[in-house]
Amino acid sequence: MRKKPHGPAVPLIAVDRKGEKPLHRQIYDAFRAMILERRLHAGQQIPSSRALAAELGISRIPVLDAYAQLLAEGYIESRSGAGTFVTSSLSDQFLSARPAVASVVSDPPSDAISRVSRLLPLEGTPWFLGSGAFSVGQIAYDHFPFRVWSDLVTYHARRVRASSMNYSDPMGSEEFREVIAAYLRTARAVHCEPSQIMVVNGSQHALDLSARVLLDPDSPVWIEEPGYVFLRHVLTLSGCRLVPVPVDSEGLDVAAGVKLCRNARVAYVTPSHQYPLGATMSAARRLQLLEWAHSSGAWIVEDDYDSEYRYESMPVASMQGLDPGSRVIYIGTFSKTLFPSLRLGYMVIPPALVSRFLAVRQSNDLGPSHLYQAALADFISGGHFTRHVRKTRQLYAERRNALTAALRKEFASEIESSQMEILGAEAGMHLVVTLPPGLSDQKISARAGKEGLWLWPLSAAYAGANVRQGFILGFGGTKAEEMPQQVRRLRKAMRR
Amino acid sequence: MRKKPHGPAVPLIAVDRKGEKPLHRQIYDAFRAMILERRLHAGQQIPSSRALAAELGISRIPVLDAYAQLLAEGYIESRSGAGTFVTSSLSDQFLSARPAVASVVSDPPSDAISRVSRLLPLEGTPWFLGSGAFSVGQIAYDHFPFRVWSDLVTYHARRVRASSMNYSDPMGSEEFREVIAAYLRTARAVHCEPSQIMVVNGSQHALDLSARVLLDPDSPVWIEEPGYVFLRHVLTLSGCRLVPVPVDSEGLDVAAGVKLCRNARVAYVTPSHQYPLGATMSAARRLQLLEWAHSSGAWIVEDDYDSEYRYESMPVASMQGLDPGSRVIYIGTFSKTLFPSLRLGYMVIPPALVSRFLAVRQSNDLGPSHLYQAALADFISGGHFTRHVRKTRQLYAERRNALTAALRKEFASEIESSQMEILGAEAGMHLVVTLPPGLSDQKISARAGKEGLWLWPLSAAYAGANVRQGFILGFGGTKAEEMPQQVRRLRKAMRR
Repeated sequence: MRKKPHGPAVPLIAVDRKGEKPLHRQIYDAFRAMILERRLHAGQQIPSSRALAAELGISRIPVLDAYAQLLAEGYIESRSGAGTFVTSSLSDQFLSARPAVASVVSDPPSDAISRVSRLLPLEGTPWFLGSGAFSVGQIAYDHFPFRVWSDLVTYHARRVRASSMNYSDPMGSEEFREVIAAYLRTARAVHCEPSQIMVVNGSQHALDLSARVLLDPDSPVWIEEPGYVFLRHVLTLSGCRLVPVPVDSEGLDVAAGVKLCRNARVAYVTPSHQYPLGATMSAARRLQLLEWAHSSGAWIVEDDYDSEYRYESMPVASMQGLDPGSRVIYIGTFSKTLFPSLRLGYMVIPPALVSRFLAVRQSNDLGPSHLYQAALADFISGGHFTRHVRKTRQLYAERRNALTAALRKEFASEIESSQMEILGAEAGMHLVVTLPPGLSDQKISARAGKEGLWLWPLSAAYAGANVRQGFILGFGGTKAEEMPQQVRRLRKAMRR
Repeated sequence: MRKKPHGPAVPLIAVDRKGEKPLHRQIYDAFRAMILERRLHAGQQIPSSRALAAELGISRIPVLDAYAQLLAEGYIESRSGAGTFVTSSLSDQFLSARPAVASVVSDPPSDAISRVSRLLPLEGTPWFLGSGAFSVGQIAYDHFPFRVWSDLVTYHARRVRASSMNYSDPMGSEEFREVIAAYLRTARAVHCEPSQIMVVNGSQHALDLSARVLLDPDSPVWIEEPGYVFLRHVLTLSGCRLVPVPVDSEGLDVAAGVKLCRNARVAYVTPSHQYPLGATMSAARRLQLLEWAHSSGAWIVEDDYDSEYRYESMPVASMQGLDPGSRVIYIGTFSKTLFPSLRLGYMVIPPALVSRFLAVRQSNDLGPSHLYQAALADFISGGHFTRHVRKTRQLYAERRNALTAALRKEFASEIESSQMEILGAEAGMHLVVTLPPGLSDQKISARAGKEGLWLWPLSAAYAGANVRQGFILGFGGTKAEEMPQQVRRLRKAMRR
């Protein structure tokens, strides 16, 4: 006959000896739930491990394990000589006040999140992240040298050493930065040393870091009007004051900027291929902008996002290379030349700012991951990058030609009568087509998105109210022979 | 006899027909330099392409190419009928004022960069990024299942499709988030759905995103004192007001926090294993903290950076799982369980905040890269992760035991007399040893770093002035049999 244990009443615990959960976990979970649900009160005594084991008819070991865990986490406390008790300091108020529902989805009160994050738009944009015809940022995936690339990734994945698994240089791997510096000097006429190169997670990351290093809340900042919507978002997060400066066929209108706000701290520009309208900033404007920056102590951020693709002439030299005084922060990306999910870009930082950027970057994410840096360094120094860019430049030129030809044919009378215009087709992987009066690009884009036609509305690229209606049409991901058909779909979408 | 060309004087250009640089580039570079250096003046006429080609004795084609480029970039302009001229609007002032030296390294004036970035320390910490004995954050690299891992990486590197090269979900891949959610529910008692998981570039990135979503400049924020130095940096960048709250053997002293600043907007805590002192936050304190957060509308950020490694009991359940009202943002990382250069972590976001975090993350870097997410999803769902954690838990327990034994032996009398203490060895991959009075941890650390002994000074973990001297000793990367010798080196470093 089993001896009835003395002591406190044993709570009802059902243990399942054949269950998946180990016994000690079952006991731990049961006690924790009883305490949290107030079936056991603060200060209440619980049975000794011996008594509970006897009651449950199990070995004492799982009970001891469960009690040890409950003790370690502070749900129970043992008082020497007296026994084991539910921790007396457990907050009864909170336990009784716990709502039954685990998660209530409602907008948080406005004072519970940051003001700047509240300014960012939350609505989905139907034309974003689509990968069909005309989606901006799409590349010729099927022409990518998969074999070479995956061989390099595989090689480095197999060649893992402790040093490549450890935290690495927050600026990026030295080898990769040397390769980037050599490429930029040759191909983009950028003045740089590897010590100025920072490897980042795409050009968006570089824009963000630059805003955090350079801008205070309320700092005035020149942005191109129209411009890149995600630049506006990242600047919104910094709390700075946006000064939209109009662009024309020579790029940013520097004189207009000076009139609007001479003392801006930074000018964000896309001189090689203005986004989205496509102008190349003229030499006169470049020198004027540099002059302004030098005389007023401002910085220039040059986002050179797609300069590798230029069809009528050689790639335009970088603006950074014209600047003798280190006022330019230069940004580039591999999202266009290789592929977007790589998430790799770089910036060239003026020597005086390198340590500031480094400190901010370490606070942000410590540094870039290893593998892709190693593979890409080899890809570039092995000549594959230049070869791929040369090959795709021709390919994108064909796609561009096919698109403009199809647009000129399909919209012949509108273009003839200047009701529609094709802009910025000399470079990059997108062009702009403007709309005849009376049409709303956002309405058409929303409709077209439902049918897999991705039309970035031009009007969304404007910060101010004085907008033009049109579409930013990506042509990188659409085959030349499909262009006529896709342009007919575009025409249909516009008609409804 | 060659016909002498009429027209403007031909500038002196030396072209090298056998040079590496193509002829058109040589001509372009020469003209650009002459214009920028004012050897050719704004408005000055330049020779016709025919004349220049004749003068140089080369074909006209490279000259035409170079002129086209100079025209495209706006250095020259053609006036119909009259010929070609250096662009008249080029800014003469700037050209003449250009300093000769390309880069002057000097600290930028204080009004030219953001106030918050100026607050970040720039000096190098000799104990950071070292990978020898006692370096914090080091793992047992040689016990990592290289083969399985690189097979998975290779598999996914070879299986590239357009969808895996394109911009992907800014929250992280759906498959990976499902795997993470399942793991967290089972192993960490986290309440979550995949829709709440955001894949980030390590836990530092998650801390940063949380600060940007939740904090305004001057928002009061509780941080643990002592605490994680890189958390302080990221909060400094947000401009918030730090409220250091003391920790004791039960973790953050909630009552002290309430007394210091009841209306803090966020509390940043490490409940599983307080960094650096190692306390596990007791159940009473957890409930008290949750109660405070609910009653005051504050958020709790739970940084669960190394909870997988616990030696005396099962891993402590997450605090997030105790919270019925979604006030907790939960952060985890693979830097400890796998390896740091992976740069992968995750956060579990309260449903009401998901869209805000998403908007901020898109502005920051658009989203995570593809390959490692795919490989790691397979690694976890294939059971390799759990197996690796189980194996390394035992390994780290041995290393921990060896370290504490060596410390107790080497510093027997100091520990006996309570002049030194060993703290927080129950979990994780580091412990703290405090120093006898009169010793400066930072001085010793600076000396020891030169000899490859990486001692994180405990005093640097304090935000306030009331600091304890000691070392945060990482033991993850040092073999058990080497511990006695390394502890002897530590003793030597302390003696000098």
